[in-house]
Amino acid sequence: MTDDHDAAAAMSFIFEAGVLKRAARTGWWFAGVKQPESIAEHSFRTALIGMMLAAMEGADPARVSMLCTLHDTQETRITDIPHIARRYLTAVPNTAVTADQVAACPPAVADVITAAVAEYEAGETREAVVARDADKLECLVQAVEYRHQGIDNVQRWIDSSRAALKTASALRLADAALTGQPLAWLTPPPQSADQPTPARPYRPLTGDL
Amino acid sequence: MTDDHDAAAAMSFIFEAGVLKRAARTGWWFAGVKQPESIAEHSFRTALIGMMLAAMEGADPARVSMLCTLHDTQETRITDIPHIARRYLTAVPNTAVTADQVAACPPAVADVITAAVAEYEAGETREAVVARDADKLECLVQAVEYRHQGIDNVQRWIDSSRAALKTASALRLADAALTGQPLAWLTPPPQSADQPTPARPYRPLTGDL
Amino acid sequence: MTDDHDAAAAMSFIFEAGVLKRAARTGWWFAGVKQPESIAEHSFRTALIGMMLAAMEGADPARVSMLCTLHDTQETRITDIPHIARRYLTAVPNTAVTADQVAACPPAVADVITAAVAEYEAGETREAVVARDADKLECLVQAVEYRHQGIDNVQRWIDSSRAALKTASALRLADAALTGQPLAWLTPPPQSADQPTPARPYRPLTGDL
Amino acid sequence: MTDDHDAAAAMSFIFEAGVLKRAARTGWWFAGVKQPESIAEHSFRTALIGMMLAAMEGADPARVSMLCTLHDTQETRITDIPHIARRYLTAVPNTAVTADQVAACPPAVADVITAAVAEYEAGETREAVVARDADKLECLVQAVEYRHQGIDNVQRWIDSSRAALKTASALRLADAALTGQPLAWLTPPPQSADQPTPARPYRPLTGDL
Amino acid sequence: MTDDHDAAAAMSFIFEAGVLKRAARTGWWFAGVKQPESIAEHSFRTALIGMMLAAMEGADPARVSMLCTLHDTQETRITDIPHIARRYLTAVPNTAVTADQVAACPPAVADVITAAVAEYEAGETREAVVARDADKLECLVQAVEYRHQGIDNVQRWIDSSRAALKTASALRLADAALTGQPLAWLTPPPQSADQPTPARPYRPLTGDL
Amino acid sequence: MTDDHDAAAAMSFIFEAGVLKRAARTGWWFAGVKQPESIAEHSFRTALIGMMLAAMEGADPARVSMLCTLHDTQETRITDIPHIARRYLTAVPNTAVTADQVAACPPAVADVITAAVAEYEAGETREAVVARDADKLECLVQAVEYRHQGIDNVQRWIDSSRAALKTASALRLADAALTGQPLAWLTPPPQSADQPTPARPYRPLTGDL
Repeated sequence: MTDDHDAAAAMSFIFEAGVLKRAARTGWWFAGVKQPESIAEHSFRTALIGMMLAAMEGADPARVSMLCTLHDTQETRITDIPHIARRYLTAVPNTAVTADQVAACPPAVADVITAAVAEYEAGETREAVVARDADKLECLVQAVEYRHQGIDNVQRWIDSSRAALKTASALRLADAALTGQPLAWLTPPPQSADQPTPARPYRPLTGDL
Repeated sequence: MTDDHDAAAAMSFIFEAGVLKRAARTGWWFAGVKQPESIAEHSFRTALIGMMLAAMEGADPARVSMLCTLHDTQETRITDIPHIARRYLTAVPNTAVTADQVAACPPAVADVITAAVAEYEAGETREAVVARDADKLECLVQAVEYRHQGIDNVQRWIDSSRAALKTASALRLADAALTGQPLAWLTPPPQSADQPTPARPYRPLTGDL
Repeated sequence: MTDDHDAAAAMSFIFEAGVLKRAARTGWWFAGVKQPESIAEHSFRTALIGMMLAAMEGADPARVSMLCTLHDTQETRITDIPHIARRYLTAVPNTAVTADQVAACPPAVADVITAAVAEYEAGETREAVVARDADKLECLVQAVEYRHQGIDNVQRWIDSSRAALKTASALRLADAALTGQPLAWLTPPPQSADQPTPARPYRPLTGDL
Repeated sequence: MTDDHDAAAAMSFIFEAGVLKRAARTGWWFAGVKQPESIAEHSFRTALIGMMLAAMEGADPARVSMLCTLHDTQETRITDIPHIARRYLTAVPNTAVTADQVAACPPAVADVITAAVAEYEAGETREAVVARDADKLECLVQAVEYRHQGIDNVQRWIDSSRAALKTASALRLADAALTGQPLAWLTPPPQSADQPTPARPYRPLTGDL
Repeated sequence: MTDDHDAAAAMSFIFEAGVLKRAARTGWWFAGVKQPESIAEHSFRTALIGMMLAAMEGADPARVSMLCTLHDTQETRITDIPHIARRYLTAVPNTAVTADQVAACPPAVADVITAAVAEYEAGETREAVVARDADKLECLVQAVEYRHQGIDNVQRWIDSSRAALKTASALRLADAALTGQPLAWLTPPPQSADQPTPARPYRPLTGDL
Repeated sequence: MTDDHDAAAAMSFIFEAGVLKRAARTGWWFAGVKQPESIAEHSFRTALIGMMLAAMEGADPARVSMLCTLHDTQETRITDIPHIARRYLTAVPNTAVTADQVAACPPAVADVITAAVAEYEAGETREAVVARDADKLECLVQAVEYRHQGIDNVQRWIDSSRAALKTASALRLADAALTGQPLAWLTPPPQSADQPTPARPYRPLTGDL
């Protein structure tokens, strides 16, 4: 197989992943959100949460962020199937979808992705456990944020996400999410008197928030 | 510092990162896109491309996906500053923004994120070089996709992204993006006669695309 | 069962159908449409096309519009499953989903809906044939419209929709869609000299398109 | 007139109806909704409610669903004129708009649509009365849903819609909407022990809501 | 009348004007734009174009920008009525709508707005002529931009807008719009060697477009 | 310089201003608004509020509306920089951005815009003071409206905007905004018995809100 053929196959999967930038997390349609977050948006913060949880739980942050990035990539082909649909649909394992997605990719690429998806789906390594908690925790945090944006029917997502958490750190973060305030970060602690330092030149901008 | 305080600080950064699920990649406003991709969406696929490029270039896929996930996280505080703004704005280094963002996080979390951002910003390790190529390549692919969606003014994004690529694999993928077709993946190769296999029960669904 | 209980169950299905006003026709995500038409929007025009086709084919326009209104109502529970997903998912028949949806409704309501869905799914009556053609034709017309809006990857939707048409009238309309111009209706034929008639008082409005 | 000419005229009306998939129900702009439901979305659920009300009231469900599908089709040409605009605008009867819309359609199509619009506008048949109630009830339900999504200024839409209802069944459904919960349908009654039945193979899907 | 009553009435009109930030320019629905510009967005650039045209035509730029800001404010109550609707609707003069809108405002406010709307509607002063040209020119420019974004059915908006222009400067600008490139501004002329000047400190930002 | 060159340069700035019709007011992303108002929408109502405040404060309404229309036009090049970013970014004065924007415009145009921006930025004339109050008041009103739409985290925008107001009239309007109801205008006072007058022919429209 030529290099060009390899590259075309890899790019084919990259184009396919572009669908996740457009595809909605379908559960939020039930809650009343007309234009919900995309699967890509969910996966991004899942990866960020995953590396933080890993650091707290003594797992490998890089590995967890990789598992999280991949954890919903099958949804280009099967969409985000909501919980209630399980009564009506039967699916092949996610690993089978991934196998099709990377079948024509350069073997090094296919191997790396296949192994990571298999690890996540098996859910046995510490990294996989943390990555799965990151997925649930991200959903819980998004539910809290939607509530702050006016959506009142999010409790079931909070409850089901919290009930699925396995690590102590994820439970602590969930509690923090439920008692915290999404905008708290915007009020940084007061700067000490000797600031601004030379490294951060400060000059007032005009006319904005 | 108590555990609860730690968790609250970590959650504060997670809430902050939620801004990236809403914040637009501002350059596309210039190109005529009313509601561009979010920074989170860009970062998600950057992480996916990064791990693929790493596999092709012999770098660490997990580390690259982590660097990519973090590479624009400073933009919660400074937004996505377009190129032309560099004529008018001066910014502190991204590492300084990250330092503020994780200052109150549990030390294990802060250390992990600080080190990854520093590595990406320095751009010296193989993983950082690959991660930076992934950032540029993702932009190029998105530009190609916007062109397929009707936006005709994307050539400057394609050109500037391609010109910044450093690895041979990224250049090959860029060529594949420019000559390929975003929907190619949707026409899988014909299945052989002995399919469907027992592992993939198939039964026609009705009435859809 | 009391009247109030009946009404609550009927309203429960009406609330459920509200999901279709938010849920996207997922196939368009593949084509590059970020915010596609909703299932409700598709179903509305399918009903309109259906009654027109019925009039052309000598079927019952009212019955066809009813079948069309109902034809995707199962998608509140299983979402709009794209064609490629059939490789990975197996579904119960749509009639089984409908049975669950109307199980608690007043019997008169449940019977009417159950019978209509069964007729559509069986596809044997003239009305069902016409309703199915309306579904496909609506998809073809939407594809043509998306092409006029800049989306260039719609040919596969046009081809697969056209190939599924069964009635002569639907084929004629498909040809008209492919050769016509979506804005043709906006240039009405010139009014004759004796207009405006008293029934249509005309007075210029200012300052608009 | 040739068949091709006929088909082109019918398709012209189908393209025109596509506007209703984009056009907003304008009243919601007053309530603070930035991107309200489309007229098509409203009409779809009106048709569904209409057939249910018909079944409850002993009217013809198919006829009612047809009347409902057509009831706002004039708004391609006059938009959705909000109530307050009646102080400032005078309109020709809706039947006159419809007459223009279908003037060039095949006579069988034009006759069917013209008669249905005339029946709805006259409001004298049982089917027309039920269809008009469906229109009002759909608006009331959407108002309730917007309230659950955070919009606080919907009471006037609830009040004016409820006040216009004429059938006993519509009033019962309105009461159910005002006391019910939009997500109630998502918690189906517990399955009995002998489920799942062979007709509904169940196998857990991974990692989603 | 107390000050508080005055202020409440003025704020009532300010809230009313908020509708224009949500209300669509309806003509673009015909062209295939799902979420068109708002009336406020159109009015903003009309005001900017107006002051530029005024400077070119020797009219009062401030007065023209004020007339332009107000020129569609009646559309909170009557929406943006598309051209074809004139066949079916009759409207009171815009001055009558404005009279109702400001009836309870402080007299100084009401007088200023009433006089400006009257001047625009009469169309006799140089400032009113220029403001009306700004309205048409803004529409033409938006049509050109939508074409660059993939919408192919905009020629009728370009033609009707251009045909309505009255001043020589507006015609010159229209020609420039039709032959120009929306992104030309993003490639500023090369900076001379002695830049950057002290007044514009330049320091490279990392990782963006 | 030829006329054509002049016109091209002026149109270049008009195209540039089109970015403001797409660009978001970024602060609202913090508050949880996924698709905030555009800068153009904010500027439009700022101009309207400005002329009203001017009338109340004895300033020149036309001049104020012009200053308001221009007050954020620099944000095509530097985007809407949120408050927190001031810790990390340093910007040249807005007048320097404007100078670049209009450098190639016809001198009459450049002079008019340059002078207005300079006046606004200096903030010394009565008109500039009123225009700056209009900017802040518009932000406060938008915050109140977002609260009515379900966004609960808007208090900081209300507080910071109110604290920056300088004129007595702006403070009175702010109080009216905080105690008023955005939909109050939709319930006009009862018409007196001698209405409708011949100038406003009234005839019931059918079937809408």
